[in-house]
Amino acid sequence: MDDLILQLLKEPSSAFLSGQELSRRLKVSRTAVWKRINHLRNLGYEIEASTRSGYRLIQSPDLLTPLEVKPILETKWVGKTIHHFHTLDSTNSKAYQLALNGAEEGEVVIAECQEKGRGRLGRQWFSPPFLNLYLSVILRPKIPPYEASLITLMAAVATAEAIQKVSGLLPLIKWPNDILLRDRKVAGLLNEIHSEMDRIHFVILGMGVNLNMEEKMFSKEIRTVATSLKIEMGQPISRKAFLQSLLFELERWYTVFLKEGSAFILKSWRGWAHIEGRRVRVTSSGEGIVGTAVDVDSDGALILETADGKRKRIVAGDIQYKR
Amino acid sequence: MDDLILQLLKEPSSAFLSGQELSRRLKVSRTAVWKRINHLRNLGYEIEASTRSGYRLIQSPDLLTPLEVKPILETKWVGKTIHHFHTLDSTNSKAYQLALNGAEEGEVVIAECQEKGRGRLGRQWFSPPFLNLYLSVILRPKIPPYEASLITLMAAVATAEAIQKVSGLLPLIKWPNDILLRDRKVAGLLNEIHSEMDRIHFVILGMGVNLNMEEKMFSKEIRTVATSLKIEMGQPISRKAFLQSLLFELERWYTVFLKEGSAFILKSWRGWAHIEGRRVRVTSSGEGIVGTAVDVDSDGALILETADGKRKRIVAGDIQYKR
Repeated sequence: MDDLILQLLKEPSSAFLSGQELSRRLKVSRTAVWKRINHLRNLGYEIEASTRSGYRLIQSPDLLTPLEVKPILETKWVGKTIHHFHTLDSTNSKAYQLALNGAEEGEVVIAECQEKGRGRLGRQWFSPPFLNLYLSVILRPKIPPYEASLITLMAAVATAEAIQKVSGLLPLIKWPNDILLRDRKVAGLLNEIHSEMDRIHFVILGMGVNLNMEEKMFSKEIRTVATSLKIEMGQPISRKAFLQSLLFELERWYTVFLKEGSAFILKSWRGWAHIEGRRVRVTSSGEGIVGTAVDVDSDGALILETADGKRKRIVAGDIQYKR
Repeated sequence: MDDLILQLLKEPSSAFLSGQELSRRLKVSRTAVWKRINHLRNLGYEIEASTRSGYRLIQSPDLLTPLEVKPILETKWVGKTIHHFHTLDSTNSKAYQLALNGAEEGEVVIAECQEKGRGRLGRQWFSPPFLNLYLSVILRPKIPPYEASLITLMAAVATAEAIQKVSGLLPLIKWPNDILLRDRKVAGLLNEIHSEMDRIHFVILGMGVNLNMEEKMFSKEIRTVATSLKIEMGQPISRKAFLQSLLFELERWYTVFLKEGSAFILKSWRGWAHIEGRRVRVTSSGEGIVGTAVDVDSDGALILETADGKRKRIVAGDIQYKR
């Protein structure tokens, strides 16, 4: 019903739509129309009401509600169900609970802000309201658990591609799943997996993308290592447009992964990561290792060649690029 | 308080303990003593009360409550916290929720019966009340996700060892994690993992052990493939004694795994599984493969040699032994 009213009010021809007209086209009473209009106003829609002329939509709220997002999505199944919240502890935690309770592949959780936004390895993800994008997607791939990390690489590729298409800028994927612009983190992924020994129950793809944050909003500690699309582009960016692009790329790359397997994803990941031959310093469980990156393994591990010519597989950790 | 009263009532010297004596030793009023005694009666303790002589414990309930179980545990940290329920959907689901909410390593969930007991690959686990053991243990190993399947092998070894020690019978581990007696399933494991790409958040070790089930209690479908310790031993078995042994072995083998790594676990697993050289038929995603088992891989996958001499790694599936 809300969808329908908004659709009618958004029709280009309709400066004003009378209550009578709305009541006729929606097949409900004029009182019912009036109630729904009030409901929409509570959701943040600015709607003018005139006794003579009827109703007119002045402005839609800049919220990522299903009402606002679903009409513009270009996906087949990702985001067909959107769970929208003003505030969540973390979109991943919410999506995880929904998935445990049977939520389907492609359901999306979006929060305007997160109180306990989480990053990799138990870190925080700064998540102030209305400026950025915090979302989680539920996937149920029929793959063995040891291939789960390919889903992480896939999501990094999709995010990099969405950023490139929307902004025109060229992001870099930093192993394993940070997205950088000008060497600063613009997006991060946290993928959580529920599995038993030989099958995956579900994967929660968690994504945080800094869209309209300004430099002064970052704390001093992260100001030199974090950025946003607005900072890099010099102009604000539509959250809806970015979300549209991100979900489209996710669906596309996930479909490619299921159909073509890992090789295609790894090739693409390498193209965005340019990791081969880079001098890196890896910090892993408090230990530091310096070496030259050779490649990523088929399970997403980083292969490093150390000074003595030995090759090491790095499964977890942080890397820094050295000059 | 309940613990203390029971401890006093269970003292060999105390045929009867007067309300006055209990009140003195527990440092509470006689009314408080009386209230706790009634509470214990509600939990299933049969306690005689005589105005002249005081209270006397006649019988403890055959329940796996913390009050009954904790005094006999021989573990250092497994089972220090026990969550006991009469009925649960599934102990694994409950333990999973507790772990998501921060429950600590070693916490144990026990149910007298399960309404939706689950086995591997989405199957059911028949879980009638009071006869058997249904429990889940929360572990938080600091290992990369690809080593998680070793935890499954470890749990199979610990369960086999507990069965052998309590019953004197010689169980066989069937890949990956069923425990057989006389070719029939006596115990099954379902280990669920919560992880991100490069670290495990927690593992839920789920165990179902058929202790005092009788043959006629099994449905016709599973009667020929399932058994219980009582059926095999010809006498009932104490659930508490078995639980004591199982948790002790789990703690011991988990400690060995963390300290010594995978080699020791794999060696032990091989000793209980006798898989090398066996002719097996594997059903995996509806497909059947016949071959000779060679070994398990370091990640728990079954290595099979087929008729054409090729080696295959089987990650998921069921096996049947052929003669």
